[in-house]
Amino acid sequence: MQNIRIVLVETSHPGNIGAVARAMKNMCLTELVLVSPKRFPDEEAITRSSGATDILDSARIVTSLEDAVGDCKLVIGASARRRDAELWQELDPRQCAALTLEQSQTAPVSLVFGRESSGLTKAELDRCTHLMHIPSNPDYTSLNIAMAVQVMAYELLMASQVPVLSSSEPQVLPAATVEKMEGLFAHLQQALQDIGFMHSEQDGKMMQKLRRFFHRASPDDKEINILRGILSAAQGVKSMRSDASNKQP
Amino acid sequence: MQNIRIVLVETSHPGNIGAVARAMKNMCLTELVLVSPKRFPDEEAITRSSGATDILDSARIVTSLEDAVGDCKLVIGASARRRDAELWQELDPRQCAALTLEQSQTAPVSLVFGRESSGLTKAELDRCTHLMHIPSNPDYTSLNIAMAVQVMAYELLMASQVPVLSSSEPQVLPAATVEKMEGLFAHLQQALQDIGFMHSEQDGKMMQKLRRFFHRASPDDKEINILRGILSAAQGVKSMRSDASNKQP
Repeated sequence: MQNIRIVLVETSHPGNIGAVARAMKNMCLTELVLVSPKRFPDEEAITRSSGATDILDSARIVTSLEDAVGDCKLVIGASARRRDAELWQELDPRQCAALTLEQSQTAPVSLVFGRESSGLTKAELDRCTHLMHIPSNPDYTSLNIAMAVQVMAYELLMASQVPVLSSSEPQVLPAATVEKMEGLFAHLQQALQDIGFMHSEQDGKMMQKLRRFFHRASPDDKEINILRGILSAAQGVKSMRSDASNKQP
Repeated sequence: MQNIRIVLVETSHPGNIGAVARAMKNMCLTELVLVSPKRFPDEEAITRSSGATDILDSARIVTSLEDAVGDCKLVIGASARRRDAELWQELDPRQCAALTLEQSQTAPVSLVFGRESSGLTKAELDRCTHLMHIPSNPDYTSLNIAMAVQVMAYELLMASQVPVLSSSEPQVLPAATVEKMEGLFAHLQQALQDIGFMHSEQDGKMMQKLRRFFHRASPDDKEINILRGILSAAQGVKSMRSDASNKQP
């Protein structure tokens, strides 16, 4: 359970941070990262942690999600069910636990939980390689954030105690770090503009689809090098073509 | 989920009762029975219920565990691990959920949670047919009562949705037919030669790597259209590009 990180983004209520720390410690998780918490440290966090102050004391505070997850390959965002969920690979907590335990053998894994009121932004979800959705009453979906962490942490502990469960999961190849993936996406975006496939006004939606596709493919470092080689070659061809043909819509 | 009853015995903090109501409603449970709560009704319960006031309003208040569970055949008591646990059949939440769902087809089932400080008494446990124990950190075992209800209720909802959600395979997206994939690979091979990335003598090995990558990504038809649009743009064929971009929703 050591390579598994709980990341809370802009938590408003320090009591929830304390309750998260308690839930984590109950389930043998230790690493908490807080992205721009509204109030922290805070007495209410200590009270609600009910003795799990070691988790609070060692919590790392950062100012961006990138700082929290940059060294991870697997970044899983907790989310309500989304209409555009097919853009991500969506996992329930049990599937998420199996994948997390397997991948945490080789690299840190981040489980990211958003604001109490509004969850994670679209841009933050775009940083995630997978979504995790806790099944719930369709008429009353909103779990308290500490409850969501509790359920997820419970599934992790259950999975860690039942080696059989994770062996049935499909083997996932070693993937690239978030940093390398972001390098690929930046290159891709530039290349698509250079070859005239994409114009800036439609960047957002198209890039989002492509991000989801490449996250799902989970390329390793060698594959990223191949893909970037292809992009460079495509950019080179463009520069050799005449300006006139490139300006056609 | 209708024949399943959550019973809280002598709860001290009304906030916990509210949090239990919220956890129940999130997971489609409706029936709450309170055995001699210290303070109820209470403003703090309403606040922490976060809108699940229907559960609080319909909660039944009784003065003995017997009154709460007398009509049940199956009564499961939540408990820390006990040295004398062999006296009961001890279940983890997953086993408990399976048994509860099965038995609730024919008679009400009670899941009983004790006091925040001291759990259930020996006499109360004697009223239970089974014990339920949530796995936890041996050095920090005490879950908040609402967290315990949340975990149990989550397992019930998961178990009730078994065919859909608890399959061990992550959801696989609808992928393209072999025919479409082969169309993509043929196009890719031609485009990589056109942009000068690949020369025929190394085709075999490079195409094999790319085939593996794209098979792993398992693109659907829309994604194949996007990818082929990109390839066409790289080749300088403008006519197919507008075709692909028109298909974006």
